[in-house]
Amino acid sequence: MKKSGAALAAILALQVPAWAQSDVNVFGLLDVNVRNIRVGPTSKTEMHNSSVAGSRLGFRGSEDLGGGMKASYWLEAALSPDTGTTAPRFFHRRSTLSLSGSMGELRLGRDLTASFQGFVYYDPFAVNGVGSVQNVFGGAGYTLGSGAVTSSRTDNAISYFLPSNLGGWNGQFMHALGEGVAGSAYTGLRVGYAQGPIDVSVAYSETDAVGSGKFTVRTIGGTYDFKSVKLTAVHIQNAWLPRKENVWLLGAAVPVGDAGTLRASYVPKNASGGGTDANDARQFAVGYLHKLSKRTMLYGTYSRIQNKGASNATVGSTLAGAAGQNSRGVELGIVHAF
Amino acid sequence: MKKSGAALAAILALQVPAWAQSDVNVFGLLDVNVRNIRVGPTSKTEMHNSSVAGSRLGFRGSEDLGGGMKASYWLEAALSPDTGTTAPRFFHRRSTLSLSGSMGELRLGRDLTASFQGFVYYDPFAVNGVGSVQNVFGGAGYTLGSGAVTSSRTDNAISYFLPSNLGGWNGQFMHALGEGVAGSAYTGLRVGYAQGPIDVSVAYSETDAVGSGKFTVRTIGGTYDFKSVKLTAVHIQNAWLPRKENVWLLGAAVPVGDAGTLRASYVPKNASGGGTDANDARQFAVGYLHKLSKRTMLYGTYSRIQNKGASNATVGSTLAGAAGQNSRGVELGIVHAF
Amino acid sequence: MKKSGAALAAILALQVPAWAQSDVNVFGLLDVNVRNIRVGPTSKTEMHNSSVAGSRLGFRGSEDLGGGMKASYWLEAALSPDTGTTAPRFFHRRSTLSLSGSMGELRLGRDLTASFQGFVYYDPFAVNGVGSVQNVFGGAGYTLGSGAVTSSRTDNAISYFLPSNLGGWNGQFMHALGEGVAGSAYTGLRVGYAQGPIDVSVAYSETDAVGSGKFTVRTIGGTYDFKSVKLTAVHIQNAWLPRKENVWLLGAAVPVGDAGTLRASYVPKNASGGGTDANDARQFAVGYLHKLSKRTMLYGTYSRIQNKGASNATVGSTLAGAAGQNSRGVELGIVHAF
Repeated sequence: MKKSGAALAAILALQVPAWAQSDVNVFGLLDVNVRNIRVGPTSKTEMHNSSVAGSRLGFRGSEDLGGGMKASYWLEAALSPDTGTTAPRFFHRRSTLSLSGSMGELRLGRDLTASFQGFVYYDPFAVNGVGSVQNVFGGAGYTLGSGAVTSSRTDNAISYFLPSNLGGWNGQFMHALGEGVAGSAYTGLRVGYAQGPIDVSVAYSETDAVGSGKFTVRTIGGTYDFKSVKLTAVHIQNAWLPRKENVWLLGAAVPVGDAGTLRASYVPKNASGGGTDANDARQFAVGYLHKLSKRTMLYGTYSRIQNKGASNATVGSTLAGAAGQNSRGVELGIVHAF
Repeated sequence: MKKSGAALAAILALQVPAWAQSDVNVFGLLDVNVRNIRVGPTSKTEMHNSSVAGSRLGFRGSEDLGGGMKASYWLEAALSPDTGTTAPRFFHRRSTLSLSGSMGELRLGRDLTASFQGFVYYDPFAVNGVGSVQNVFGGAGYTLGSGAVTSSRTDNAISYFLPSNLGGWNGQFMHALGEGVAGSAYTGLRVGYAQGPIDVSVAYSETDAVGSGKFTVRTIGGTYDFKSVKLTAVHIQNAWLPRKENVWLLGAAVPVGDAGTLRASYVPKNASGGGTDANDARQFAVGYLHKLSKRTMLYGTYSRIQNKGASNATVGSTLAGAAGQNSRGVELGIVHAF
Repeated sequence: MKKSGAALAAILALQVPAWAQSDVNVFGLLDVNVRNIRVGPTSKTEMHNSSVAGSRLGFRGSEDLGGGMKASYWLEAALSPDTGTTAPRFFHRRSTLSLSGSMGELRLGRDLTASFQGFVYYDPFAVNGVGSVQNVFGGAGYTLGSGAVTSSRTDNAISYFLPSNLGGWNGQFMHALGEGVAGSAYTGLRVGYAQGPIDVSVAYSETDAVGSGKFTVRTIGGTYDFKSVKLTAVHIQNAWLPRKENVWLLGAAVPVGDAGTLRASYVPKNASGGGTDANDARQFAVGYLHKLSKRTMLYGTYSRIQNKGASNATVGSTLAGAAGQNSRGVELGIVHAF
């Protein structure tokens, strides 16, 4: 930049003097595994990724604005470390700018949806890998064929989060502008309470479907920490026009010594409406996490899905199943955060 | 890397011992807004980005070579923080390697063009958002239908910049190799003088058009800082074969208290040649910037374009306008640099 | 993230408390040049990149696991700094997660192949630019038309590296899962010995070809450092079904003063089988590297390929040659590591 231009720009527009280095936190996680997936009579062994936590590379930071306020940004890319690829949206996982203070947080950009956050924390497998509760959800993008693209994340979101000093109450309201793109306009609400061993929440969302109607998600879930075991339960109802799927998850996480955690979940799904009444499914998953250190873990997970009627849910997405075929998968991997 | 290979490579080729950490400056900016654009009878509300400054993530640094010389690199990606996307060229904004010293700077790679730098500093809206002077430019890529892709940036550029110790004189010569790709071969020159309250410059460029002829840009502009107000004026002439557009910008930036700046511009365009004589347009924009801190600002901008003849310029690019339809837009946003 | 969710996730899944900043090494290299390539009667001048070393931006780090063990990650993107573009696989150059200790290293992900590492260190031009030994290799992806995509790198690799304390012995076994994608399933082995002035190794690999058969690579190479000159020699045999190419490289690197290195290589290729017996080629390259500092160098390289029969190898990839046409190229550039 020419010196004079920089001086002019400093007055006319935003200009940080010489882009002085601010406090940028570069963070990430790589999760790589080898897994074997079986769908009906076919099986496949492959290197895969992100079965305990989503592989990522991110940049984030914040600035103190005074008066208890701060501005913060968060850019987080999704990685497939087995192949070195990233997602079509480079900062697929999160791309947000926030203003926050004692009144809560205003957050703008691409982010997890409020309804996704209504079940992710109650899945012992954190909606990752062969044990993810989302495996039994129906339709492309897990939205029953409605064309909605908001099961997990959304673009163009305006979110308000309650502040953290409400005696355990927490919550979020989110509205994502559709901008004329079908399947994108999202509105969601989540309210929760967390105190001591208990954490409960409810959430509701609706997304304008492609074609007609709205794709809606209702969740209610909770967890109780008995120390020797943490039990979780969540009910998720996805619905679009006459179609509904009711998914229940019962989960447990059991500490094993100082470094281990056993995880298990049982996930029955009941489909109904639009001729799908017979298309039920259920998933059972069990896994073990072993910490090698503060930032590195080994893991193994086994999962099995039984399909009925026309349901063809699988524990992994690279093989397509036929109606009623069962699926099972096992994966062994390493996860490292930085 | 195997140890022996590293030792060999250290002699045969470039090798920094164990890639010892050097001084990398990670920097960036997120600019997110909500805007309403009206084009003719149609209006649209959307989340948008980069209306005060281009959203970005960058990596840069330099090395002292001794004798007043240094080597420096600059990699700068363009972001759309509302959706998490990046540009097709990942380091769209800048990707350069430089050698510089008391004789000036030699810069190689992708960069802003010399002619773009002939008007960007004189636009109170810094060629961003609904108030950008470029909104009234004609044709795809703002180049009158010539196919030239060099209105703002170019690949494969070799630039020489004058050193900063010439008593206020500054300038740049830039040549971008076309490499056989039509619309890409660019040659440009900019010369300026900046001292105290005054900053003036002229620039000229030509780009081989797709098909025949050259797309040329001529600019002359200046600014004078009266402290209570900074006035700017620039004339830009884009031309291709018989077609010409003469664009004038009159602008002002007025400090409001310690934290505010009012910005305004009036931009008439006269089109001529090739049957375009009736296709004039003019834009009026006004906005307010409010600093929350050193690195965070709120802003609001309003802009309006009046089109004549077949001109269909709009204040935002997501809605297409018909001949002669007017356009107006308003945007409210946050910008945060890091 | 809501506080309660974070607390839950910390037990159920991997969670680094508040993603505390760990030691991330951001590193990279930009190599930009201007070159002229001639192929038969046609020549082209262009800005190009990565002719001494691959331009890159990377992130890497490690964690001490205790007991001499560590976990480490390496994400390395490929850049074209002349245009700001990256590769289709963003972390094209490397994307790996490792566990290592006194028993060696287990490495998972995308990486250089074992067989590529069997010749890259013996090429004075490090398989970059107009002097790269790979220029004479036949077929798309340098694999004789077999469709194998593993000449340089591979996805989905499981590698084991010998530890570094074996008295000079070193080596690697690599297996890349094909995952049903033709041309991808790779198995390779490299064993070497490096002590004092000597460094020798052999490697063998096979990749399932598209269609039938396997693409195989055999290498044997070495170098001896006489101080006044380092001599290198390597033999590479690429083979697929009846087709074979035997490539020999004789190379030298000569220190010139404190800052310079002269590099030269002579690379004859003998093609045979499948009607290719007449399609031989040979390349001669000479270049000079001049260090401006620890991290910045200037360079110039000249290279020439003589083709026989139907061979149409070129010193640069942007111009296609006809059967038997010769090619030559010269490039002048700057390389800067950070």
